[in-house]
Amino acid sequence: MARVDFWYEFASTYSYPAAMRIEALASARGVTVGWRPFLLGPIFADFGWRDSPFNIYPVKGGYMWRDMRRICDSLDLPLKHPQPFPQSSLLAARIAIALEGEARAEFSKEVYRAEFGAGETISDRNVMARLLEAVGADPEATLALAEQGAVKDQLKMECATAKALGLPGAPCLATRDGEIFWGNDRLEQGLDWAKRASRSA
Amino acid sequence: MARVDFWYEFASTYSYPAAMRIEALASARGVTVGWRPFLLGPIFADFGWRDSPFNIYPVKGGYMWRDMRRICDSLDLPLKHPQPFPQSSLLAARIAIALEGEARAEFSKEVYRAEFGAGETISDRNVMARLLEAVGADPEATLALAEQGAVKDQLKMECATAKALGLPGAPCLATRDGEIFWGNDRLEQGLDWAKRASRSA
Repeated sequence: MARVDFWYEFASTYSYPAAMRIEALASARGVTVGWRPFLLGPIFADFGWRDSPFNIYPVKGGYMWRDMRRICDSLDLPLKHPQPFPQSSLLAARIAIALEGEARAEFSKEVYRAEFGAGETISDRNVMARLLEAVGADPEATLALAEQGAVKDQLKMECATAKALGLPGAPCLATRDGEIFWGNDRLEQGLDWAKRASRSA
Repeated sequence: MARVDFWYEFASTYSYPAAMRIEALASARGVTVGWRPFLLGPIFADFGWRDSPFNIYPVKGGYMWRDMRRICDSLDLPLKHPQPFPQSSLLAARIAIALEGEARAEFSKEVYRAEFGAGETISDRNVMARLLEAVGADPEATLALAEQGAVKDQLKMECATAKALGLPGAPCLATRDGEIFWGNDRLEQGLDWAKRASRSA
């Protein structure tokens, strides 16, 4: 069975359309997706960046928001700039790590819809509680779990793995044979690669 | 008639497959392409970069070279890392500006083939003379023209236009209605946009 890991960061704009697109694309190819939330902060810190490159380099930021508008329009996805941008994604990432399988995927999509579809604040525990409820998880129990050492440590390990894989940004697909595909616009290519690789394995 | 401007930089890796792909893609859509060589240096200088971001950020560089390998393999294009990277592209850009129409497009593709297909040094006047000969231009006359003030000024104006357009990198497609599409992987999207825009104009 072909499989890819979908590495995403809740503060990442392009991870939003990617999260909305990946399941249908993967399913059409018979590829299984592992949802791997991580934080870009430690990777960007190595680049000397203490903020989003879209804020550090306004030309890139201007291009990105226009590009996101075109992408979201073409997918019929709402787009609203969250304030501030980027959002603090630590709490959402810990909650996603505390969830598993289908619940993690569903929660993650809800986070993106709230953040970039409705401009909500994802560091807000009340917002998170509402989204947990929407995906059928127990808000209090999950929020409590998300702040336990084991979950915090697991997220740190995921960030270390992302760095070790050499992820240059988010979203990325990582295939079993060690390929990385960066960007919402590379989902198809990464999934096709994973499918071919599993056939020749 | 639909038209796009194809903005490219001779030192830019992703401009290589883009230059090789754009004519067939444009022609299949009935879109005319204007070849617009420019220099990223002044734009990168505004970002505080004095070198290629692929050198400044080795994680991005490692990803880019692997990605280029996959892209070139899929297109049956040879790929060789020129030394040094990035190459000084000033001379090649001035020559391209000194040429027009078909000759500029043919010369530009020859430059990319020599630089990234064969690892040649594009700041070398002898290499440039050979490529000019290959596309049927007069090497001596064109090299002389390329170093006249009018051509130098024209390239400076092109760089100013590129900056005014907000190009975040290379290659880019610019449409008549003011859209910018950045990247080799956005040629199809940009050409489709130009075609639709010309129909509704």
